[in-house]
Amino acid sequence: MACNVVGVLGGMGPLATVDFMRKVVEATPAERDQEHVPMVVSCVPQIPDRGAAFHGHGASPLPAMVESGRRLLAAGVGLVVMPCNTAHLWFDDVRQALGLPMLHLVDAALAEAQAAAPGDAGIGLLATEATLASGLYTRRRRASMRWLLPTAEELRRHVMPGIAAVKGGRLAEGRERLAEVARALRRRGAGVLVLGCTEIPLVLDGEAAGIPAIDATAALARKVVAWSRGKPLRYLT
Amino acid sequence: MACNVVGVLGGMGPLATVDFMRKVVEATPAERDQEHVPMVVSCVPQIPDRGAAFHGHGASPLPAMVESGRRLLAAGVGLVVMPCNTAHLWFDDVRQALGLPMLHLVDAALAEAQAAAPGDAGIGLLATEATLASGLYTRRRRASMRWLLPTAEELRRHVMPGIAAVKGGRLAEGRERLAEVARALRRRGAGVLVLGCTEIPLVLDGEAAGIPAIDATAALARKVVAWSRGKPLRYLT
Repeated sequence: MACNVVGVLGGMGPLATVDFMRKVVEATPAERDQEHVPMVVSCVPQIPDRGAAFHGHGASPLPAMVESGRRLLAAGVGLVVMPCNTAHLWFDDVRQALGLPMLHLVDAALAEAQAAAPGDAGIGLLATEATLASGLYTRRRRASMRWLLPTAEELRRHVMPGIAAVKGGRLAEGRERLAEVARALRRRGAGVLVLGCTEIPLVLDGEAAGIPAIDATAALARKVVAWSRGKPLRYLT
Repeated sequence: MACNVVGVLGGMGPLATVDFMRKVVEATPAERDQEHVPMVVSCVPQIPDRGAAFHGHGASPLPAMVESGRRLLAAGVGLVVMPCNTAHLWFDDVRQALGLPMLHLVDAALAEAQAAAPGDAGIGLLATEATLASGLYTRRRRASMRWLLPTAEELRRHVMPGIAAVKGGRLAEGRERLAEVARALRRRGAGVLVLGCTEIPLVLDGEAAGIPAIDATAALARKVVAWSRGKPLRYLT
């Protein structure tokens, strides 16, 4: 049975999941409810911290991610996506455990970044320590991309506290901290900025950053809409 | 097994579901992802139009609503809510079919409206034709509430096209049409306004309406948070 219901393994964090869903709705050409992309969303945030686990001082999030994904399986989805960059460190494990097709957030963002980067412009990357240290973006493609990354100091003082502020609902503080690093990356030569953590576009866009921005969440949303609309719109089977 | 995962039978429409989820997140006192309310959301908008069915010129939405609710059951939720007012015309049928506890959107909104209405102030109600004609709000409680409703002309010319505009993504048009009727209800003596269709608070608040407004979506979100936090925060069982 071809099933066009999109499964969203979310809750990492919950506001980022909500933001992703809104971007799917906005990316869909629809006049009526019934023309929108069907989604089942497991927004169960009781998943151990991904960054802490990567750095070796916290439980692995994988069992809880798989458990959350199994809720989607039981609910009958035909695809799984995860609107969380750092969670993609466990992408292959989750895909293997669930046995469902998945779309990769970083691939969606990289395709848009390559299309948007003018000439040999540097590409700035705002992301968590774990995403940066793991090379989730910078080692994903063979194609040469000139990356500009936050320094360890910028990460510690602004990026990580900025992301934590967003998760804690302190949006203005988060915006200020993240915009600070965006401006620094631009000064160091970034012509395009990838927002490589789903918390970041909640508070920062290209205008606030002063540099064209690739919203990884929106890039994934556009791929999801294309996937779903490649299938006939069916629901009751 | 006590299960504190909230099931959201959504997609009616999808933006209203996203709005509801955001309001649950905002109503939750949380500093970290893991403290947020776990939700599974079936945002499958291929449900026949509720208003058309009520007026007798469209298929019943009930089978598709139950099918969507069964996705939640399969995913292991302990409660079901529906962030759509008109869908509550089928509330009892859905509850019976699913056999799960449910919280009623209209009860949540009425409790807040009664608390907010000063003295014998009239309570204005912005809602769909089906919600109004069915008495979903006005007959729900024995307690006397002095309701002020849109006229048939206002419904036809402004409320229904305004809600359709929101569903079609034309938010400014929706806001203008709905604010027009809000102002008329205030002129006729409403001291409080109930936003009794989940599309309406997407574009209208008390400030835009010029009158204190009860957001039925937010009222349900607050009840959901209270329900979930009355349970221990558990996930992996």
